[in-house]
Amino acid sequence: MTQAGIDPTRFAPLSPPPRLLLGPGPSPVHPRVLQALAAPTIGHLDPAFLALMDELQSLLRALFRTENELTFAVSGTGSAGMEACLVNVLEPGDRVVVGENGVFGGRMAEIATRLGCDVVRVSVPFGQALDPDAIAAALGTGKTKLLAVVHAETSTGVLQSIPELTRLARDAGALSLVDCVTSLGGVPVEIDEWGVDLAYSGTQKCLSCPPGLAPVTFSPRAVAVLRARRSKVSSWYLDASMLLQYWGRERVYHHTAPINMLYALREAALLLFEEGLPAVHARHRLHHRALSAGLQALGLELPVAEAVRIPQLNTVRIPQLDTGRSPQAQLDGELRGALLREHGIEIGGGLGAMKGRVWRIGLMGHGARRESVERVLDALERELGRAGAGITAGRALPAARAIWESEER
Amino acid sequence: MTQAGIDPTRFAPLSPPPRLLLGPGPSPVHPRVLQALAAPTIGHLDPAFLALMDELQSLLRALFRTENELTFAVSGTGSAGMEACLVNVLEPGDRVVVGENGVFGGRMAEIATRLGCDVVRVSVPFGQALDPDAIAAALGTGKTKLLAVVHAETSTGVLQSIPELTRLARDAGALSLVDCVTSLGGVPVEIDEWGVDLAYSGTQKCLSCPPGLAPVTFSPRAVAVLRARRSKVSSWYLDASMLLQYWGRERVYHHTAPINMLYALREAALLLFEEGLPAVHARHRLHHRALSAGLQALGLELPVAEAVRIPQLNTVRIPQLDTGRSPQAQLDGELRGALLREHGIEIGGGLGAMKGRVWRIGLMGHGARRESVERVLDALERELGRAGAGITAGRALPAARAIWESEER
Repeated sequence: MTQAGIDPTRFAPLSPPPRLLLGPGPSPVHPRVLQALAAPTIGHLDPAFLALMDELQSLLRALFRTENELTFAVSGTGSAGMEACLVNVLEPGDRVVVGENGVFGGRMAEIATRLGCDVVRVSVPFGQALDPDAIAAALGTGKTKLLAVVHAETSTGVLQSIPELTRLARDAGALSLVDCVTSLGGVPVEIDEWGVDLAYSGTQKCLSCPPGLAPVTFSPRAVAVLRARRSKVSSWYLDASMLLQYWGRERVYHHTAPINMLYALREAALLLFEEGLPAVHARHRLHHRALSAGLQALGLELPVAEAVRIPQLNTVRIPQLDTGRSPQAQLDGELRGALLREHGIEIGGGLGAMKGRVWRIGLMGHGARRESVERVLDALERELGRAGAGITAGRALPAARAIWESEER
Repeated sequence: MTQAGIDPTRFAPLSPPPRLLLGPGPSPVHPRVLQALAAPTIGHLDPAFLALMDELQSLLRALFRTENELTFAVSGTGSAGMEACLVNVLEPGDRVVVGENGVFGGRMAEIATRLGCDVVRVSVPFGQALDPDAIAAALGTGKTKLLAVVHAETSTGVLQSIPELTRLARDAGALSLVDCVTSLGGVPVEIDEWGVDLAYSGTQKCLSCPPGLAPVTFSPRAVAVLRARRSKVSSWYLDASMLLQYWGRERVYHHTAPINMLYALREAALLLFEEGLPAVHARHRLHHRALSAGLQALGLELPVAEAVRIPQLNTVRIPQLDTGRSPQAQLDGELRGALLREHGIEIGGGLGAMKGRVWRIGLMGHGARRESVERVLDALERELGRAGAGITAGRALPAARAIWESEER
């Protein structure tokens, strides 16, 4: 393939098909955020851009509910935020306890292993919350540098209670790291109140922004650990000791910031404060309740215990077909394909151990609205009926509407 | 700073000031690229998006002039591309020879050092090209895994001839890595013809696209080295052995791709092929010649030898003031400030050893046009005159026009 092999007239104009994004992310992007994304690019050391960075940092601190000075956006997706947190505070030989109840806990363990750490995985079956007693036991059997857990496990739909775990970490003299990729902007996140030392998120979940940035925050304790390192951070790109010189007062050039994505993130954060965080969280809860009621009225099963469900990420067991025509895993692909092709709706499949066994329906950020719930319930009813699944027709939308109406009263 | 501390009405609507970006990047973004950036986000596993990734890969291969299967965009800025190339082929203890004639060669050496490699720096003073004999000598004194050099040193404005260096690497049994951040899309880059094994670029230079992605390419030899590693890649986020499963046929989820930035990069690459790469390179050369003629007519000095100047990045010595009112370094800040405030033009200062001694004027991508040259020459003439620099007035624009007119004949 050389230059001669490219005929630009054979490329169609960019025209992404209309999609309602109800998977595990990316989620629907707010029109104002898309508009901000397309604002004219300016320089990464332009005084006007530096002022925007200050604004963005104040917005991110308010979003994380923290006073942490070192709060900024990593120039990469949520996984880069995960790696940035781990790589900055861990050194070879450090002991790390990782709570693993899904793919993303496993990913943190994998990254810490690559950094040469002594990784202790405290696992529970996918779909359950972590067991604080097991975490305490793991912390008690050796001097631990870091406890890493996931707040909202995107792979399973389980919401983890955090305060007890961060207290255990602090009592053990360990830092705490919390993955807030799917939680931030969907459910309350209280970094300072909960005593979280490191947290990261992603733009493409409840912030209604395209993927590409990872908001992160480091507590003063985490910064002290960073400053006291014996070895340099193995990643130059993610080295927070250098990044804080760009995001801080010195404004020392490190790498060229992704200007337009930072425009978009500022707009996305502003939208959250215009609505108000409590109202945003209530909106996610309301539409989650309506969706859950509708799915159950269809006869579908929600395998995650009600007390630990993530409102913005709903896990649904794929039904067995009455006809026996195709196994569960085959219905998975067929149904999701039909939703995408016939209805323009994306929902997610299972990940890791849950692949082929569950669907994941996201109601995140700008996607957490009544229209999303109505469209996905209607589409599921039609397509499951067509596939021969033994669903109950005609009851899903009324069940969802009953929730909305009860809220309006 | 808590949620209560944010009053969204105190944030002005996003409105970046109009800027003509003539620094070392970011460069002016083409309007069609900004439009593509704001297209509706779709999912990273959507068939429509996977088709776009295929198109983008064919465009990037044609841009790099390579048949390399493993050619894709790293989800980070140019420096992430640098780190991705190094981290995937290097292991602790590997010997690496780095050509260092500017900041970015130094950055490669720093990253390789952090990876635990035995790094041999072959340095020449900033502003000069590398000495092939010195590179050969360094390759000859030990079994070397990788030779890393910079094609267009953004910090100094020096263009490096590559074919002789890659031949030396190959003869020594080493892989070759070439930084093409500022060169790609501005001057010819011939990955296959030159026998380059690894290369990376950035979107914010000659591709007329905002910062945020790093096109990279790995030769089959580089992929073989990756596959034969004794240890896992220390960065999970940048691990090409996993990324190639997403960008390749398997389409295995790794991390959520930065969808909208990839839209923008596809559009930016298409624009280059619509104009044609030879025409694009000729345009950069032409406006470089006009700018050089104008700067010299002003009485300014171009410290880089003519034979090794990067057309798209012009290094200019900051003049000493006749009045002695302020030293060279003070004029630097004053003049760049006045250009930005009074004329809306951004040019770059010096980096590293050249800080306070030179300006860097970029004519990159969509910025490489006659209007850019005219505006910056006019603004420099006015502001240098105002500052009391002993420039020659009234001759810069005619000198530039003579170049354009000679081309038209």
